[in-house]
Amino acid sequence: MESDRHEEAQQLLMIEPLIDRDQMMRSESALLRRSAINSTSQVALVGAKVCPIESLDYEIIENDFFKQDWRSGEKVEIFKYIFMKWTLCFLVGVMGGLVGFFINLAVENVAGTKFVITSNLMLDRKFMYAFGSFAAINLGLTLFSAIITAFISPATAGSGIPEVKAYLNGVDAPGIFSVRTLVVKILGNISVVSASLYVGKAGPMVHTVSCIAALLSQGGSKKYRLTWRWLRFFKNDRDRRDLITCGSAAGLAAAFRAPVGGVLFALEEMASWWRSALLWRTFFTTAVVAVILRGLIDVCNSGKCGLFGKGGLIMFDVTSTNTSYHVADVPIVLLLGVIGGLLGSLYNSLLDKTLRVYNYINNKGRAHKIILACAICVVTTFLLFGLPWVSKCKPCPADASEACPTIGRSGNYKKYQCLPGHYNDLASLFFNTNDDAIRNLFSKNTDTVFQPTSLLIFFVTNYFLGILSYGIVAPTGLFVPIILTGASYGRFIGRLSGSRTSLNHGLFAVLGAASFLGGTMRMTVSLCVVLLEITNNLLLLPLVMLVLLVSKTVADMFNNNIYDIIMKLKGFPYLEAHAEPYMRQLTVSDVIKGPLQSFDGIEKVRNIVHVLKTTGHNGFPVIDGPPFSDYRAWFGLILREHILKGSGKADKIEDIEITEEEMEMFIDLHPFTNASPYTAGETMSLAKALMMFREAGLRHLLVVPKDSGRPPVVGILTRHDFMAEHVLGMYPHLENSRWKKLRLHLPKFV
Amino acid sequence: MESDRHEEAQQLLMIEPLIDRDQMMRSESALLRRSAINSTSQVALVGAKVCPIESLDYEIIENDFFKQDWRSGEKVEIFKYIFMKWTLCFLVGVMGGLVGFFINLAVENVAGTKFVITSNLMLDRKFMYAFGSFAAINLGLTLFSAIITAFISPATAGSGIPEVKAYLNGVDAPGIFSVRTLVVKILGNISVVSASLYVGKAGPMVHTVSCIAALLSQGGSKKYRLTWRWLRFFKNDRDRRDLITCGSAAGLAAAFRAPVGGVLFALEEMASWWRSALLWRTFFTTAVVAVILRGLIDVCNSGKCGLFGKGGLIMFDVTSTNTSYHVADVPIVLLLGVIGGLLGSLYNSLLDKTLRVYNYINNKGRAHKIILACAICVVTTFLLFGLPWVSKCKPCPADASEACPTIGRSGNYKKYQCLPGHYNDLASLFFNTNDDAIRNLFSKNTDTVFQPTSLLIFFVTNYFLGILSYGIVAPTGLFVPIILTGASYGRFIGRLSGSRTSLNHGLFAVLGAASFLGGTMRMTVSLCVVLLEITNNLLLLPLVMLVLLVSKTVADMFNNNIYDIIMKLKGFPYLEAHAEPYMRQLTVSDVIKGPLQSFDGIEKVRNIVHVLKTTGHNGFPVIDGPPFSDYRAWFGLILREHILKGSGKADKIEDIEITEEEMEMFIDLHPFTNASPYTAGETMSLAKALMMFREAGLRHLLVVPKDSGRPPVVGILTRHDFMAEHVLGMYPHLENSRWKKLRLHLPKFV
Repeated sequence: MESDRHEEAQQLLMIEPLIDRDQMMRSESALLRRSAINSTSQVALVGAKVCPIESLDYEIIENDFFKQDWRSGEKVEIFKYIFMKWTLCFLVGVMGGLVGFFINLAVENVAGTKFVITSNLMLDRKFMYAFGSFAAINLGLTLFSAIITAFISPATAGSGIPEVKAYLNGVDAPGIFSVRTLVVKILGNISVVSASLYVGKAGPMVHTVSCIAALLSQGGSKKYRLTWRWLRFFKNDRDRRDLITCGSAAGLAAAFRAPVGGVLFALEEMASWWRSALLWRTFFTTAVVAVILRGLIDVCNSGKCGLFGKGGLIMFDVTSTNTSYHVADVPIVLLLGVIGGLLGSLYNSLLDKTLRVYNYINNKGRAHKIILACAICVVTTFLLFGLPWVSKCKPCPADASEACPTIGRSGNYKKYQCLPGHYNDLASLFFNTNDDAIRNLFSKNTDTVFQPTSLLIFFVTNYFLGILSYGIVAPTGLFVPIILTGASYGRFIGRLSGSRTSLNHGLFAVLGAASFLGGTMRMTVSLCVVLLEITNNLLLLPLVMLVLLVSKTVADMFNNNIYDIIMKLKGFPYLEAHAEPYMRQLTVSDVIKGPLQSFDGIEKVRNIVHVLKTTGHNGFPVIDGPPFSDYRAWFGLILREHILKGSGKADKIEDIEITEEEMEMFIDLHPFTNASPYTAGETMSLAKALMMFREAGLRHLLVVPKDSGRPPVVGILTRHDFMAEHVLGMYPHLENSRWKKLRLHLPKFV
Repeated sequence: MESDRHEEAQQLLMIEPLIDRDQMMRSESALLRRSAINSTSQVALVGAKVCPIESLDYEIIENDFFKQDWRSGEKVEIFKYIFMKWTLCFLVGVMGGLVGFFINLAVENVAGTKFVITSNLMLDRKFMYAFGSFAAINLGLTLFSAIITAFISPATAGSGIPEVKAYLNGVDAPGIFSVRTLVVKILGNISVVSASLYVGKAGPMVHTVSCIAALLSQGGSKKYRLTWRWLRFFKNDRDRRDLITCGSAAGLAAAFRAPVGGVLFALEEMASWWRSALLWRTFFTTAVVAVILRGLIDVCNSGKCGLFGKGGLIMFDVTSTNTSYHVADVPIVLLLGVIGGLLGSLYNSLLDKTLRVYNYINNKGRAHKIILACAICVVTTFLLFGLPWVSKCKPCPADASEACPTIGRSGNYKKYQCLPGHYNDLASLFFNTNDDAIRNLFSKNTDTVFQPTSLLIFFVTNYFLGILSYGIVAPTGLFVPIILTGASYGRFIGRLSGSRTSLNHGLFAVLGAASFLGGTMRMTVSLCVVLLEITNNLLLLPLVMLVLLVSKTVADMFNNNIYDIIMKLKGFPYLEAHAEPYMRQLTVSDVIKGPLQSFDGIEKVRNIVHVLKTTGHNGFPVIDGPPFSDYRAWFGLILREHILKGSGKADKIEDIEITEEEMEMFIDLHPFTNASPYTAGETMSLAKALMMFREAGLRHLLVVPKDSGRPPVVGILTRHDFMAEHVLGMYPHLENSRWKKLRLHLPKFV
C-alpha cells in the first residue's frame, strides 16, 4: 500500500525530485515561459517517498481574532503563556536528557553483550562460532531496524537533521514529527548502532528530541488520542518553531553532553530565525539536559547500569595539565586542515552520488530497501571481523596505563586472536563500539599503541563504510562516523610526522576529527565548542579554531555542506539566507505567476468553495470594492485554514457539507483576514524580496502595483517562487551568465 | 567653545535627554496631537554633550549605480572584495590583540610601579609618605585621564559598549569612532585603571577595537588625512557594521582572553542583525586575537615585560581535577543566584540615579567634570589606604602555597602594616590591581585566608565605589568592578555557609561573580562561556548556567540591563527586537507625521535645493506622474546623500554652488533612486512594521495606500516614529492602559 501510494504520487505529480530538475525545467520553459505554473519544488522526498510539501506560517497573523486575543488577554493569561513556554522548555530538557541517556544505556548494553559473547568465544579460540554469533546478532539488529523503518515510518531513515533544519526554515514535510517517527527513530537507532554499523547517534538524537518538542508543543498526538488539554497552549507555528529549536539544541547537547555546543549548533546550523530570547531559552533547555545527564551518570557510576561504563556518554577526558604546543606546530595543523577540507568535500560528493544510487534502489520497493541494508551490514561485519587478522599481534607495553590485554570490557588493548600477553591494535579499533574506538584514538600517551598501517586500514574502511552506511533504511547519524574517520587519519598523520612535532597523538586525533567535521559539516563555532566540551580541554581552543577555519575554507571551494546536499536531494524548498546574484536583475513581477485568485471582502460562499476546491493555494488576497469602498483596495490576506476554521472544525474543504441554500449566501471575510500582510512593490528586486521573505519568516508576500490604474494586488509570492529551478526555468539565459558559474563557489564567502 | 556649542545645541533643540521626556511629551501632546512634528529622540547625549543623531543605511540601496556595480563586477573584483573583507577581519584581530596586550602591559607596569613604591615605603614603616605618594600618583593619573577626556574627546567617557551597541542598531552618534576617541580611550583607560579606581578595562577595550574596525573599514581618518586608498573599499554602512561587530567580539576576546566568549558576546549583547557568515568571520577575528595574545604572553613569560606578571591578562586558572559538587549544593547555588539578581537590579537602579546626578554636575562645564573625577579618586584612595587598617593582622599559614607575606609583588598575602610573619587579608584585596584581587578571590584552597568581616567590608566598598566611579569623565568599564563585587560576596557567603557545603570558596567566588554579572548585564550564554574561559574549568558549566539563569530571571523583574539603561539615559533611539503590546493597536498611518516631501522623477533643481535646505529629511519618495507615466506612481526612494553625490563631492547642500541658470534646469533623479524600497500598507500594524523595520535594517519605510484614489505614497516612517516617547506622546491613553504597566516587566520573558 505504501508503494502504491508512492506510485500514485509519482504519476499524479509527474515529478521525480532526484532527477535533474533544473535540466527538465530548462527544456520545458523554453516552450512555456511566463505562462508556466510553478510546479517545481512542491514535492519532496521524505523517507524515499515523494510527499507534497507545505510551508509554515511563521508570520504573526493579525486578523481580528488575533487582536481580540491580545486585547482580552488578562495579565494572568499572559503569565500563563510565559510560564507554559518555560515549562515546555523544561520538559523538553528533561525528556531530552532521559531519552539521550536511555539510547546510550541501551546501545552500551546491547552492543556490550554482543561483544562479551563474541569475545568469550574468541578467548576459547572458537573463531567460527565467534564470527557466526557476531554476524547473526548484527544481521538481526539491522533487519529489525530496517523493517520497522521501512514498514512503520519511512520518514525516519537517515539523520533527521536535514528535515528539522528544513522545518525550522518553514518547510513542513509530512510525518517527520509524529509519534511513530519518534518510536521508530529511538528503537531503530539503538539497534542499528548496536549492530556495529558505521552510523552515529547524534543526528537521530537531534531529530528525536525535536520530535518530542514538536509533540509537546501541540499537546501530544491527535492520531493516537494522546492529547493533554493543558499542553495545547500553542496553536501557532511560531511558538512551535521556537520549541523545536530548543529541542534540536537539547538533542545535540544530550548526544555529546555539550550544553553550550548544543546552543551554538542550533544557532549556527539549524535555525533560520533567531531572537535573543531564544538564546536564553535554548540555553535553559540544554542546562536542564546537562543536569539530568549528570544525575543519571552519577547513578551509573555506582554500577547500576549493566554494561554502561565510561563509554556510555561521549566524554573523552583528554585534560592534561601539560598540553603544550608551539608556533612550530602550526604548519602541521594547517596541513591537517587542508587534508580535512579535501577529504571532507570528497566525502560529501561521494555521499551525494551514493544516495542517488540508493534512491534508485530504494524506489523499487520495501524488499529492495531491506536487502540493501542487510547487504551493508554483511559487508561491514566481514570487514570488522576479518580486517583485524591483517594486523600483527603486539606484545603488551610494560607501562600500559590499563590492563593489557583487555578482557571482558572495552579498552585500548583487545586480545582478539592473539596469544596471552599480546594485543591486536586493529581489533581495539574495529572490534569495539564506535564511542570506545573514538576514546582509544583520543587517548593520550598512547603514541606507540597503534601501528601506522592499522590506522591507515581503519581510516580507509571507515571512510567508505561511513558513506555506504548513511543511506540505508534506518535511523543513521553522521557525526560519530565522521569523528571516527577524522580521528583515525589525524593519528595516522601524527605517526607519520614522527619527531617533527611534540604534539601528542591523542591531540592529533582530536584535530583530525575537527578537520574532517569542518570539511563535511562546515560549521565552525559550534563544532569548536562541542569538541572542547567533549575533550574537556579549553587549551586546545586556538588549534581547533585554526583547523576548523582552514578545513571549512578549503572544502567550501568544492561543494556545499553535507546537510544542504541531503536537503537538496530530498527536494526541500529551502530558503537560503542570501540571494543569488542573478536575483538582483529580476523584479518580483518577473516571477509572479498567473492567474491570481482573490476574494471580495463580502464574498459568496459558492465562489469560496469553488476556489478552495479547484486550487491548492493557501492564501488569498481580500479586496474591497464599490459599493463597500470608494475604490478597489486590498484589505489583507486570508489563509485557507482560517476560512475553514471559520466554517467549523474541518481540516479540508471536502469535509465540509454545505447546503445549496448556504451556497448562495454571502460571508464577511474581514474578521478572518490578516489586515497587516507584508507587501512588495512590483518593481522590488527579487533579491530584496527574498531577504524580506526570509527575514520576516513569511509564507505569502503580496505584490502591489506602484500606480493607481491597476488592480490593487497583482500577485502573490510564495517560497517556491524564489527557488532557483523556478526562476532559472523561466529565465534560462541567466543560468548561462557568469552568475551561475560564480554562485557555485561564492556565496559561502560573501 | 565646547560648552558654548553645547548651550547653543540646548537652546536650538530645546530638549534635554536626561529629564523625563515621557512626561514632557505627554503634556505637550495633549495640545498638539497629530499635527506635532516628531522632535523626540533626534538628539542624544554623547559624552555629556547633546548631539544630533543620524540613522545608518543598513539596507542595500538598489539604484542604477548599484546595479551597474554588480553587473560590471568582474570575477576578480568580487574576489578582491571577499579577500578585503577577510583581510580587514585579520587586521582587526591583529590590532585588537596588540592593543589589548599593550593596555594590559601598560596598566601592569604603571600600577605595578606605584604599588612597589608605596610598598617599599610601607616596609620602612613610613606610612604617611606611603599614603602621600599613593594619593599623589592616583590623583595625577586620574587628572590626566579626566583632562584628556574632557578636553579632547568627551564621547570617550564611560564604557563605550552602549555607543557601539547603538551603532550596530543603526544609530550614528557623532564622534564615537574617530581617531581622537581611539587615542583618548586607550590612554585614558590605562591611566584611570592604574589610578586604582574601581573601573574596568573590558568595556573600553570593546570600544577601542570597534573603533579600530570602524577606522579600518573607512580606510583611515579623513580628518587627519591618514587614509589609504587600498583600504577604502567599503563605502557602505553594511560592511562597516559587519566589521564593527567583529571588532566588538575581538575587544571582549582581548580583554578576557576568551575567543568563544567574545563571539557570543557580540551575538548576544551587541549585534542587532546577525547572519551565519558573520558568525564565521567573528570567530576568525577572535581566533587571531587569541593567537596574538598567546604569542605575546610567551614573550612575556621569559621576563621581558617589566612588571607584567601572571596578572597581566585575566586568566584565573582554577582548574582542579577534583572540582566536585553534588545535588546537595544546588540550594546554595540558587541562593547565590537570587542574591545576585537582587543586588544586580539594585546596582542598575542606583547607577541610573547616580548618572542622572552626575549628568547635572557634568553639564555645568569641564571644570565641574574634572573636579568630580578627582573627588571620586580622593575618596577611593582614602578608602583603599585606610580600610586595611581595620583588619587585624593574621599570622601566615604554615601550608601557604606561596610566599607569605608577599613582598614586592602581587599575591594573596600582603604584608601592609603588619609585623614580619603576618599578613593583612584586606590589604591583599584593596591594595592590589583589580585583576590581582579577582585572582586572589578566585584562588582555591584558600578558604581560611580571608576573614568574613574583611570580605564584607570589601564587598560594600566595592559595590558603592563601582557605582560612583562609572560616571566620571574618563574611559571606565563595568565588567571588572562587577566581577570583583560578585566574587567578594560569593566568597562571603561561602564563609557563612561553613560546613554546610563542600564547595571550594574559590568556586563560591566564581559563582558570585556569575550571579552579579547575570544580575546587572543580563547576558547568559556569553557570560557563561567567558567565565568558563577565564577560569579554564568546563566542569563548572552546569553551576554557572544555573546561577546565571536564576540571577537574570530575578533581576529582569525589576529593571532593564545596565547597558540599556545607559543607552536610554543617553537618549539613543534604539530599536528593540520586539514590539510593545500597544503597538498592535496602532497602524502605521496613526503615527506618520507632517507634510510629506517628495520629488518628481524629473525635478527642477530649484525645488530640490529648496527642499534640501528647508528640511532635515534624509530620504524622499520619487513619484512619476503624467506626462511621463499614465498615472501617478511611486518610483522609489532617493537619499539626500545620493542627490548630493550626484551633484559633486559636497557633503552638505550649503557647500554646493549653483548658478541661477542651473537652478532653472531639470534633473533626472531616476538613476540615483532606490527602485526597491521597502513598503508598508497604510493599515499595517505598527508592531509588524517595527519588526520589518528592525529585521531588514531599514532607515526609511514608505507607507503606501491600499486603494487607488490617493497619492501613491502617503508617508515615510523612520526609526524615531517607533520610539515609545513619540507614539505614547501622540496617544497618551495607551500609556495608561494596562499595557504600559505590563511592559515594564513582561518583554524580557516573552
